[in-house]
Amino acid sequence: MSFSPLIRQLIDSLRVLPGVGQKTAQRMALQLLERDRSGALRLAQTLTQAMEGVGHCQQCRTLSEETICHICQDTRRDDTLLCVVEGPMDVYAVEQTGFRGRYFVLKGHLSPLDGLGPEAIGIPQLLARIEQQGTFTEVILATNPTVEGEATAHYIAQLLTNKGLIASRIAHGMPLGGELELVDGGTLAHALAGRRPISI
Amino acid sequence: MSFSPLIRQLIDSLRVLPGVGQKTAQRMALQLLERDRSGALRLAQTLTQAMEGVGHCQQCRTLSEETICHICQDTRRDDTLLCVVEGPMDVYAVEQTGFRGRYFVLKGHLSPLDGLGPEAIGIPQLLARIEQQGTFTEVILATNPTVEGEATAHYIAQLLTNKGLIASRIAHGMPLGGELELVDGGTLAHALAGRRPISI
Ligand SMILES: [Zn+2]
Ligand SMILES: [Zn+2]
Repeated sequence: MSFSPLIRQLIDSLRVLPGVGQKTAQRMALQLLERDRSGALRLAQTLTQAMEGVGHCQQCRTLSEETICHICQDTRRDDTLLCVVEGPMDVYAVEQTGFRGRYFVLKGHLSPLDGLGPEAIGIPQLLARIEQQGTFTEVILATNPTVEGEATAHYIAQLLTNKGLIASRIAHGMPLGGELELVDGGTLAHALAGRRPISI
Repeated sequence: MSFSPLIRQLIDSLRVLPGVGQKTAQRMALQLLERDRSGALRLAQTLTQAMEGVGHCQQCRTLSEETICHICQDTRRDDTLLCVVEGPMDVYAVEQTGFRGRYFVLKGHLSPLDGLGPEAIGIPQLLARIEQQGTFTEVILATNPTVEGEATAHYIAQLLTNKGLIASRIAHGMPLGGELELVDGGTLAHALAGRRPISI
């Protein structure tokens, strides 16, 4: 190795970024040092501020530095529609389609083999949120179209149907096994429009 | 936009990283917030330490937090061979080939249209370094095989030949128009081995 200790540490810690391997981390480290130290210092500052300041919205559980996020605070939204997703990136993806209802963000999907049951992913909080709001007539289950996402949607649909609520599932306009956050907006818009009630 | 201000700032500042566009920056920001806040805080810390602590070696001008880098301090190196490159990433690339002489790092290449002449890229310091050391018998010009890199090598070769030194150029084992830091080690090793004296 021909890098000095501080540069080696920087390269190592850049690998925390998703999709960044050794070679990419090296180029990033040296380019920042050679060409944009002030940009790198700004990045260090926003990283610290965001990691320390961003929590989860108490109502929808998406990432937000406010107790109640700006989507939950928005009074012009449709209070009869709730869209349930696996993560914050999915909220962004669904927003891009023009959906203007409310959201609830699970912590991923049910995964019994990993010990992740209904409590671990926040299903009790979802039910509490629905009860507390009292205005939702339809709950759109927009978990990923994977085996686990389907199982999670079906599990929640059963609970909601028992309570007399309409549970719907986004249509399979997207490839099976794919991830919600990777699909293009048009496909996702079609999938939302083509949602169907779940019959148990 | 559906991200909160702190998250938006984080996404914006991640785009300082080379090769990172809007979509990649979004995924990075949310993945760090969801999955590895301690890794992100460590990254913030090493970014700050490196940007504030890393300077340039006074002898070879590569990036280093020490006044004299560990390559220049290494007494087992061949003091008759000096390898001149365009940037610190190139030092790393040449090291990987097994080269164990000395280095001098220019600030890029001559670029008259951008107003970058010999002083701007450090050629006077290169000549001073050669004179001060007094032991170099051959100077390998390992600038990139681009039009500007070739012109820079020829300019330096002329100065050195006038002083009675042997100036050599790495062989064109690499594709023309390519960049030194992107070529594989084997190709670069061949290019080093096949270097030839420059005849003016
Ligand atoms: Zn919210
Ligand atoms: Zn040095």
